[in-house]
Amino acid sequence: MQHPIGVFDSGVGGLTVLKALRRRLPCHDYLYFGDTARVPYGRKPREMVKTFAEQISNFLVDQGAEAIVIACNTASAASLPELADKLPVPVWGVIGPGVEAARRATKTGRVGVIGTRGTIDSGAYQRRLEAAGLQVWARACPMLVHVVEEGLANSEEADVLVRHYLSGRPEMDTLILGCTHYPLLRDAIQRVVGPDVMLVESAEAIASALADELGECTGRSDPQIRHYVTGDVVAYRHTAQVIGELDGEVLPLDVTSLSRKPVSCAKM
Amino acid sequence: MQHPIGVFDSGVGGLTVLKALRRRLPCHDYLYFGDTARVPYGRKPREMVKTFAEQISNFLVDQGAEAIVIACNTASAASLPELADKLPVPVWGVIGPGVEAARRATKTGRVGVIGTRGTIDSGAYQRRLEAAGLQVWARACPMLVHVVEEGLANSEEADVLVRHYLSGRPEMDTLILGCTHYPLLRDAIQRVVGPDVMLVESAEAIASALADELGECTGRSDPQIRHYVTGDVVAYRHTAQVIGELDGEVLPLDVTSLSRKPVSCAKM
Repeated sequence: MQHPIGVFDSGVGGLTVLKALRRRLPCHDYLYFGDTARVPYGRKPREMVKTFAEQISNFLVDQGAEAIVIACNTASAASLPELADKLPVPVWGVIGPGVEAARRATKTGRVGVIGTRGTIDSGAYQRRLEAAGLQVWARACPMLVHVVEEGLANSEEADVLVRHYLSGRPEMDTLILGCTHYPLLRDAIQRVVGPDVMLVESAEAIASALADELGECTGRSDPQIRHYVTGDVVAYRHTAQVIGELDGEVLPLDVTSLSRKPVSCAKM
Repeated sequence: MQHPIGVFDSGVGGLTVLKALRRRLPCHDYLYFGDTARVPYGRKPREMVKTFAEQISNFLVDQGAEAIVIACNTASAASLPELADKLPVPVWGVIGPGVEAARRATKTGRVGVIGTRGTIDSGAYQRRLEAAGLQVWARACPMLVHVVEEGLANSEEADVLVRHYLSGRPEMDTLILGCTHYPLLRDAIQRVVGPDVMLVESAEAIASALADELGECTGRSDPQIRHYVTGDVVAYRHTAQVIGELDGEVLPLDVTSLSRKPVSCAKM
């Protein structure tokens, strides 16, 4: 593989990040890790999510990843910046790039952020946005992940829940979609907030940040992708197709083998 | 173990069935199988769910189960009656007992049933209820499983979604909760349908059916329970505690080892 970047998420949501990365940075290959045996991370204790993030990062480095992208907002919020000190390769989370994109987008200085319970309760977005001098409204939306994973992104259920979670929000001109699943709810969210509110997506924000850092690349359009999944492969393919991004081989991985070191892979 | 009964579900929802069984039939021990690496079953293709049910039943028989209870409505709808012909021990699903309980409960002959997409689309409840001469209204409620697994059974989200799913229903005096997770939403559902509608739960219905068949037993109050889970053990304990039923040892099982025969267990 060519300078592979390891991308991981609690499940399939991070495929939206993978999609943005391979479009902006096609001269890298990608190792995608979907921790589908332990999804969702959103309500799990912070220490548990930190351990998962460290196990998975070490595994990806062992498989040859030259950089790590934590596609999952919950895992980014729980594990950074400490994880960066423990890894021998650079690691990016989605929160910093999201905050930077919102800072550039807002004209009124009033910004909102929605995410899982873990992401919002960590205060990771709020602290950084406030440090940038912005007024912040934040709300945990635990059910929105499931609306997407059930293939109900364009449904009455999605509209009902989005309206519920965004009710009572103050005036704002920018809203951060602080979860990799939410880009798939973009239409429902835009309908509720109206056309004048800018929606910031993690996937585009991190892809821009990496392109700035590593340099855009041209002359190649078809990166190689390998997926590792801790849950069932057939179920993963099914949900990935619902989300609309599945390419490359899918290898099963026994989650019980993911102790810190050494890490073994069922099919290697 | 003493005449162990194997109980399985796509995940933790079947613990409501286990709870009812151990209360009514404490002279049996129990093997509970939670297929948490492949949960949810509700939207997966029928053939896939049938294969899962057969793999798990064979595994439980190999571990000594003298009878199988399919706690999951989706798996009952997908795999019965064919699975009964393939197993060397008796197998019960939750649909027959639920229909029987509704038939006895209704006075007006107008009955409703709610469940996952897989359960409702299979028509398993509807066919049997209509064969019993009842008028049936049925609705798939795919998000309700997730409300429970997120620990949001008593929340605004639960009320919003229950109202959404039950809107537009006709007059009825009995409603079957056709999913093992729904008993945890009993209060929210009862508030919406009003106090005069009888709610029928799979867990109580199957426990009554088994007690009728095997005979009530007394003189023992503390069955031994062993849990097998295909996903992460720590995550399983966490969600089981959210649901409020966790007792006995929990053993991890590599889902890739669940080929039809022979079946091996990571920790045995």
